[in-house]
Amino acid sequence: MKKLINAVEDVVKDSLVGVAAAHPDSITVDMENQVVLRADAPHRGKVGLVSGGGSGHEPLHSGYVGYGMLDAACCGQVFTSPVPDQMMAADKAVGGGAGILHIVKNYTGDVMNFDMAAEMSAAESGTRVESVLVADDVAVQDSLYTAGRRGVGLTVLMEKILGAGAEAGRNLDALLALGSRVNDGGRSYGVALTSCVVPAAGEPTFELADDEIELGIGIHGEPGRKRAKLGTAAEVAEELVEPILADLDFTGAPVIAMLNGMGGTPLLEQYLMWGEVSKVLSGKGVTVARTLVGNHITSLEMAGCSLTLLKADDDLLSLWDAPVNTPGLRWGC
Amino acid sequence: MKKLINAVEDVVKDSLVGVAAAHPDSITVDMENQVVLRADAPHRGKVGLVSGGGSGHEPLHSGYVGYGMLDAACCGQVFTSPVPDQMMAADKAVGGGAGILHIVKNYTGDVMNFDMAAEMSAAESGTRVESVLVADDVAVQDSLYTAGRRGVGLTVLMEKILGAGAEAGRNLDALLALGSRVNDGGRSYGVALTSCVVPAAGEPTFELADDEIELGIGIHGEPGRKRAKLGTAAEVAEELVEPILADLDFTGAPVIAMLNGMGGTPLLEQYLMWGEVSKVLSGKGVTVARTLVGNHITSLEMAGCSLTLLKADDDLLSLWDAPVNTPGLRWGC
Repeated sequence: MKKLINAVEDVVKDSLVGVAAAHPDSITVDMENQVVLRADAPHRGKVGLVSGGGSGHEPLHSGYVGYGMLDAACCGQVFTSPVPDQMMAADKAVGGGAGILHIVKNYTGDVMNFDMAAEMSAAESGTRVESVLVADDVAVQDSLYTAGRRGVGLTVLMEKILGAGAEAGRNLDALLALGSRVNDGGRSYGVALTSCVVPAAGEPTFELADDEIELGIGIHGEPGRKRAKLGTAAEVAEELVEPILADLDFTGAPVIAMLNGMGGTPLLEQYLMWGEVSKVLSGKGVTVARTLVGNHITSLEMAGCSLTLLKADDDLLSLWDAPVNTPGLRWGC
Repeated sequence: MKKLINAVEDVVKDSLVGVAAAHPDSITVDMENQVVLRADAPHRGKVGLVSGGGSGHEPLHSGYVGYGMLDAACCGQVFTSPVPDQMMAADKAVGGGAGILHIVKNYTGDVMNFDMAAEMSAAESGTRVESVLVADDVAVQDSLYTAGRRGVGLTVLMEKILGAGAEAGRNLDALLALGSRVNDGGRSYGVALTSCVVPAAGEPTFELADDEIELGIGIHGEPGRKRAKLGTAAEVAEELVEPILADLDFTGAPVIAMLNGMGGTPLLEQYLMWGEVSKVLSGKGVTVARTLVGNHITSLEMAGCSLTLLKADDDLLSLWDAPVNTPGLRWGC
């Protein structure tokens, strides 16, 4: 294992020291609870948006704390759910009297811990605490770590859109309805060329032959749908698009698309993949209205990419376009 | 070699198709010349800023085309200088009557090609065409590909600061003077944990043992100062800072710092490194006023990081803070 770290058990804590040092004006880090907070939280009258999960997917979630997106991100150990104490500390710090919304990726551990925290936060503070569960990965129905679909790339779009909604003053019920619309219209699928190495494990999570690709991979190196020979980018693009369009009809509405790098794939290749994917989508009658290319939800240094599509409408497009000012996503401010 | 590409010889062209597809509103790609242009170029009365170089360092340079930064980026093959025809096409497209400034990283091929282009563009158009040469790498005095220091991380800061200056209406002489100040006050140093694989070569540029790190690496896998055992992040941070501070005194002025990922190092580790580097800098009396962490000038999928420091003043800080709206760097707009 070759990594720029100190002790394996300190990776997340040590990284948060850097986050705090890099963004002193906009972000506060509660080091004891490993919670990244907007420096100007709480906001009176605004629904507090709290997310989090295992670390190793940066910029998700800690890089999406800021104006127009999350109020707080709870950072678990690498690929390990944070615990309820962390979410409760986050809830307490960002509660502005208009309720709290947890954005939770669908993994058994995260769901359980966020549920417990929601109950205890609500009991302790008298605040209403609700959850939106992201479950967009069409690769597998159930997986190693989930009942139901895994929450993957759509989480980035969910945090952006709900963040814009909360910033615009929408209330908790409106945000829950908005979250349902994003879930209903969003789908993802990913491929991996190499495994990542979890620091605590010290070796690759899985092995792939030099000419193999894993299709339908999750964001933790968990198995996908199948292995295949690595073809051309044009062929991989077909493999990425097909299962998504087979699951949901994306014609007839403007689509927000994200071509996401898994961490170890150069931006040069990500744009190349987007070129191929956009040709396939266009050939299938899908109209892309907005595009995001880059490392937005990663799996440490895994090589590969994922595609997320979201059926939008004028409201969702306008929330997508609304100003956002976070280390990981920034426009309009 | 495992890459998301079609034919090796089409990598750059195919990637530019994706760039054009991803940013239809803000960017135009001259596919014949492999030049990325601001969609709204040329700007009357503004100095046209043109950069470029070998591909494989994205987001540099193509990702820095836009408001407040470059007007055009000329994309060579991977790690290969673009040719004069490309720069001449760029110069022609962005010339707004106030002259053209080439921002050139100090590599023999780039310098030669940009010089030829400058001469021919000037002769053809009657426009004044000048160059700023970036040469900030303290690792080696001369290198495989350069006479004098290599141009590396400071290029990102140079493009941002000159871009802001040009946007604010500074003339060509003022921008040349500004470029000199950035060069005088900027230094970089990098380390690599793994090699990258150039598509046309198909195999790693160099080999490093599992416990080895290359210190003083460039951005093309060219040799650095020395190899050493990979230590802790805290030890690597000392190794990164020391040669920079030995070369220039960074105390007594606000410093703009960039902790840059080389491509294959997760953001989690990059922030961790910034945490360690910022402690070392603080211990040496260096005051960091602005920080940028992320993949900003990469070497394909190379694992590692580099540090760039720039001695600033109120003018440079204000140009740094000025609005920028490019795919790779965006704030304030």
